[in-house]
Amino acid sequence: MSACRALRGSNGLLRAVSSPRVARPVVGSLESRRRFTASTRTMSSFYPSWEPEGPSVKTEIPGPKSKAAIAELDEVFDTRSLNMLTDYTKSVGNYIADPDGNVLLDVYAQIASIPLGYNNPALRKAAQSDDMINGIINRPALGNFPPTEWADILKSGILKVAPRGLNQVFTAMAGSDANETAYKAAFMWRRQRERGGPNVEFTEEEMNSAMNNQSPGASQLSILSFKTGFHGRLFGSLSTTRSKPIHKLDIPAFDWPQATFPQLKYPLDQHAAENAAAERAALDEVERLLTTYHVPPCAVVVEPIQSEGGDNHATASFFRGLREVTRRHGVLLIVDEVQTGVGATGRFWAHEHWDLPHPPDMVTFSKKAQTAGYYFGDPALRPNKPYRQFNTWMGDPARALLFRAIIDEVEKHDLVRHTEKVGNYLFGKLEGLAAKYPGEFENLRGKGMGTFIAFDNPRRDQFLAAAKKLGVNIGGSGQSAVRLRPMLIFEEKHADILVEVLEKIVKSW
Amino acid sequence: MSACRALRGSNGLLRAVSSPRVARPVVGSLESRRRFTASTRTMSSFYPSWEPEGPSVKTEIPGPKSKAAIAELDEVFDTRSLNMLTDYTKSVGNYIADPDGNVLLDVYAQIASIPLGYNNPALRKAAQSDDMINGIINRPALGNFPPTEWADILKSGILKVAPRGLNQVFTAMAGSDANETAYKAAFMWRRQRERGGPNVEFTEEEMNSAMNNQSPGASQLSILSFKTGFHGRLFGSLSTTRSKPIHKLDIPAFDWPQATFPQLKYPLDQHAAENAAAERAALDEVERLLTTYHVPPCAVVVEPIQSEGGDNHATASFFRGLREVTRRHGVLLIVDEVQTGVGATGRFWAHEHWDLPHPPDMVTFSKKAQTAGYYFGDPALRPNKPYRQFNTWMGDPARALLFRAIIDEVEKHDLVRHTEKVGNYLFGKLEGLAAKYPGEFENLRGKGMGTFIAFDNPRRDQFLAAAKKLGVNIGGSGQSAVRLRPMLIFEEKHADILVEVLEKIVKSW
Repeated sequence: MSACRALRGSNGLLRAVSSPRVARPVVGSLESRRRFTASTRTMSSFYPSWEPEGPSVKTEIPGPKSKAAIAELDEVFDTRSLNMLTDYTKSVGNYIADPDGNVLLDVYAQIASIPLGYNNPALRKAAQSDDMINGIINRPALGNFPPTEWADILKSGILKVAPRGLNQVFTAMAGSDANETAYKAAFMWRRQRERGGPNVEFTEEEMNSAMNNQSPGASQLSILSFKTGFHGRLFGSLSTTRSKPIHKLDIPAFDWPQATFPQLKYPLDQHAAENAAAERAALDEVERLLTTYHVPPCAVVVEPIQSEGGDNHATASFFRGLREVTRRHGVLLIVDEVQTGVGATGRFWAHEHWDLPHPPDMVTFSKKAQTAGYYFGDPALRPNKPYRQFNTWMGDPARALLFRAIIDEVEKHDLVRHTEKVGNYLFGKLEGLAAKYPGEFENLRGKGMGTFIAFDNPRRDQFLAAAKKLGVNIGGSGQSAVRLRPMLIFEEKHADILVEVLEKIVKSW
Repeated sequence: MSACRALRGSNGLLRAVSSPRVARPVVGSLESRRRFTASTRTMSSFYPSWEPEGPSVKTEIPGPKSKAAIAELDEVFDTRSLNMLTDYTKSVGNYIADPDGNVLLDVYAQIASIPLGYNNPALRKAAQSDDMINGIINRPALGNFPPTEWADILKSGILKVAPRGLNQVFTAMAGSDANETAYKAAFMWRRQRERGGPNVEFTEEEMNSAMNNQSPGASQLSILSFKTGFHGRLFGSLSTTRSKPIHKLDIPAFDWPQATFPQLKYPLDQHAAENAAAERAALDEVERLLTTYHVPPCAVVVEPIQSEGGDNHATASFFRGLREVTRRHGVLLIVDEVQTGVGATGRFWAHEHWDLPHPPDMVTFSKKAQTAGYYFGDPALRPNKPYRQFNTWMGDPARALLFRAIIDEVEKHDLVRHTEKVGNYLFGKLEGLAAKYPGEFENLRGKGMGTFIAFDNPRRDQFLAAAKKLGVNIGGSGQSAVRLRPMLIFEEKHADILVEVLEKIVKSW
């Protein structure tokens, strides 16, 4: 049974707000915060009396306390990418707080990695459990000395939500090494096939050349990725990342190929023919690279929605085509669900939107899972000998336990379906804004994809700064995208606050 | 003040056992376990009433319960590298337990990554703290939204033990990405210097070629590492790892150079001249590669003791020479202290043994630190723009908090000096065994290096299996090394148990 169906089958406690509310920005004033009191009943659907009534901006951000603390931090830790110093003890639910008393609605959520809000009481309970304490203080080398209960932790957690067709996992630490270990599995799988199967021994030449980083021991194979894709920033994953020069400059890279990701035009229904042509051209380019690139690809890695690269979507038809062309050429398909996974698109895994006739060969995960790894199903993806795919920790049971607690909450509150509904509500509101303010909410995208929604704004960076002043923390991606990454506990009332702030920004210009 | 001096200055509570005891193997029988009761007083030096009196082997390992659980686990998780299924809830101090009731003295310690024993009460307290719970349930994107207290967590923890001369840190998840982010810093540093400084902008050609994984944007530079060295298993770190073919086969690698690590002969005092010649030759080879290799090295990475590669030592003189030659050629020196760091060599950092006139440029850490990252001092090692060295999580505050608690305990009990003393005691005993049983404890090494001791045995794998049957969990490394990696709470009484078992093994052959 797929994760999607499993989650949809549960009886959630959710009572979503369906009545549209007209409300004004709620920034800073007590009056405006009181105005939201009427809607606090709806919060009880998840966590009664848990959240503030709305954002509250009291100082510039960073305020004086933050500035002093940032200066101190910068002595020992690079703070130039700092967005907002955060008081996590005062952050609650959808709201992030800073040391100056500012409280913002957070639709960035630690770069899309917080699933259930700050200081979630169910996760707090999990963090206080004996299991968690054991996981923290007795950290195992999972490949050598797994805990007695490791199978149970996996089956009741990570594997309970395994994508359809994939029933095994290799656990990792974060998105980059999840992808890189998946790539390693792909290289070993391909070379084993070329060699003639799992029982064919390595040659002396292979062993000697591998030690010297030369072929044939070090394979001359590649991973094909897509332009504007993002798969991490270590050396192998960065070689497949094509987001921005600043991510790649000066770092040695493998000579691996990139294909054009279809650049869809919006609104989709007005550009159906040319979008279909763009997707067909992209698939043709993939096929050409698979068959002719001078460093042959053994796998294609793709995000269901290119996230860091600017929220670039493609249709289910494109992805079915990608599955078809990779299968036809004996190349693995790795779906990178690091940012899209765990519910935000209205499915537990975004690739469930595609109705694939054959599952991906591997699916990588991290971020909202709070742990990481890759799922696979084909036993041939286990390398033919032990210690080929191995490292000291191979993940972190403490974080695997947290993911289990997250899954339990997602099921209990039916949060995937909830996110689908709230996303539809939010998308409708944004369509209204886009119609009302031409040029400000361009290429609105993510319809039917839960709250995984984005649009372009020509003054994107000022747009994000203005939102912060008005009490909403939003992230950008790509060149001009405003990307919305609410948590799974984001409700219609939060969508209303967000939409009001967005309108206020463009009205003020 | 160096970490070493800081720790040595504290007044530890340690009361080490100095009286030699003659004792027999303590395996399995109640009688033998009773015989150790007399020495349990000494345990009170750290944690009263905490440990069992000795190992206890009740079944074959794996026993029936373990076998059933391993079979279940193997359905979803590769178990071919499994050494021993572990019941962490029953493991205490230096003793590791399994589900069949076997309790072994553990001198492998999760591949050298457990510093203070299983179920350490001080770490339990830290795991139950509000700070830890906050760190678990509110995981930040540290580069964008660091916690208010992040500077304090760093300064009272990771940076409190920073190597002399290195006052900044980039935090990471594990040893591999600690090394890879250090390598990235090295590449950016070198290219910035070649470019003419931090204010010289990237060219269009650089930006475009970087996106296509080609030079000049993707630099044609390398990291020089040593034969039989180990630095991790992701694509960049694996390109510097030269331990065994099985670690590298089929994985694409960068064309980076390797130098010969000096192969010292033992005992050292009988081979002084030829060892010095071997070290001089190795330094000459390094210099030749730095000046002539067709992919110019911008950094040299080296372990203070090659650990996975077989516990290969070099003298302080060699490392001073390495620092000299790297400085002279404008190449960075990265010291990989992932396995050697945090006390086991009788210094907090193993490179403190070298008395370097200039500190390493970067020092990487993980394992016993339970968190990871690299230390640096030169501000030029911060890349010239934000987001060049960045990822979503950039480490884990929960694990940083655990390291802080570890440091507190190390200081409180003066565990670095303790480990130096116990190591000397153990080494003396092993010298006795080596003299008594020629050929069984060959190339005994690690004198004066705390408990970081190893020897070669021609039947190494049988040796380790025999040790396990007799109640001691030991690891191997390289081709024939038996590597001892006790925790920092290993005492002379544990050394006695270990030595008795080692003797029993060779007597039984």
